[in-house]
Amino acid sequence: MSNQKARVAILVSGGGTNLQAIIDRWHEGELPHAEPVLVVSNRKSAGGLQRAEKAGIRSEFLQKENFETNLIHLLESERIDIIVLAGFLKILSEDFVKRYPNRILNVHPSLIPSFCGDGFYGLKVHEAALNYGVKVSGATVHFVNEVTDGGQIIAQKAVDVLPDDTPETLQRRIMEQAEWILLPEAVERVAKDIVESGREGE
Amino acid sequence: MSNQKARVAILVSGGGTNLQAIIDRWHEGELPHAEPVLVVSNRKSAGGLQRAEKAGIRSEFLQKENFETNLIHLLESERIDIIVLAGFLKILSEDFVKRYPNRILNVHPSLIPSFCGDGFYGLKVHEAALNYGVKVSGATVHFVNEVTDGGQIIAQKAVDVLPDDTPETLQRRIMEQAEWILLPEAVERVAKDIVESGREGE
Repeated sequence: MSNQKARVAILVSGGGTNLQAIIDRWHEGELPHAEPVLVVSNRKSAGGLQRAEKAGIRSEFLQKENFETNLIHLLESERIDIIVLAGFLKILSEDFVKRYPNRILNVHPSLIPSFCGDGFYGLKVHEAALNYGVKVSGATVHFVNEVTDGGQIIAQKAVDVLPDDTPETLQRRIMEQAEWILLPEAVERVAKDIVESGREGE
Repeated sequence: MSNQKARVAILVSGGGTNLQAIIDRWHEGELPHAEPVLVVSNRKSAGGLQRAEKAGIRSEFLQKENFETNLIHLLESERIDIIVLAGFLKILSEDFVKRYPNRILNVHPSLIPSFCGDGFYGLKVHEAALNYGVKVSGATVHFVNEVTDGGQIIAQKAVDVLPDDTPETLQRRIMEQAEWILLPEAVERVAKDIVESGREGE
């Protein structure tokens, strides 16, 4: 590839703060091997789409109907190397996941294997952690495979649980202290591996 | 109670490094509400017994036969408030555990609920963590109830897993960076609660 960068697509459903963290680190030059070129949302009103537009990144809303077929078409036309699930709340099919082995990254707001798997998403993760009474939680970036939250772990970061935490305050602290740091770092690390092994644009 | 200290018994099976951490912090004045007065082992050769003798703490080896009956006798004669399992590898009966609610502390070398429960002890915990591929592990101090590693969590501390870790190196780092720090702190915290609520010597 001419510019030696892995081309990154980011899938969002909501506000897109994890997307913003990737954009910010990219603008600061901390992702020398990665280039965000596509943001896709399954929700038309997702704040992530506006963040992408503001950063000059192609942004696309895809309807529920034929979502994955249209997504694959977009990914191929943009020659995407890495797919990042950044607050993307739609479950991808096993066929889709198997098409991109070690190319799909997800961020989960706990220290896997604690509080992960089916049923653990969004605030439910933090509710479960507080109900269990853990004093340390955190976030995990992992490759996506056909088992929910079951793919190889790329990076983890611990975050203290405070005595008066609510699911909301814990969620926010884990975003700020772990997710927004880990995810851009993991994207760069995977991008570097892909570029250095000459597997970009496959 | 005259001296306002909770009387602490420590149960050991091995070298007793967690016991030593308690003794060291106690000597340094960091356990103002606790006094280690008894060390019990189910193994005659346990290094913890020598550590106790050196520190001037009563040390007792109890044989397998009638172990719990003899242990209860010792605990009662020494008016023990807090029982600490510090590398104690014998399973205590449900009857024993129910006799001392919120009085028995255990240290487990992982971030519970990861890598805990039946079958997870000693190096097996660290083997499981490395096989899973976690990047963060740690230690947990918890009250003991009738579910293995299922009692209320008192304190947790995260420790990074390094790329070339073996179960042995990870075990050692978790001891040094988490167990030896957490356990004395937890003993003091529980002791302080007991003394301040006037429940010592019950």
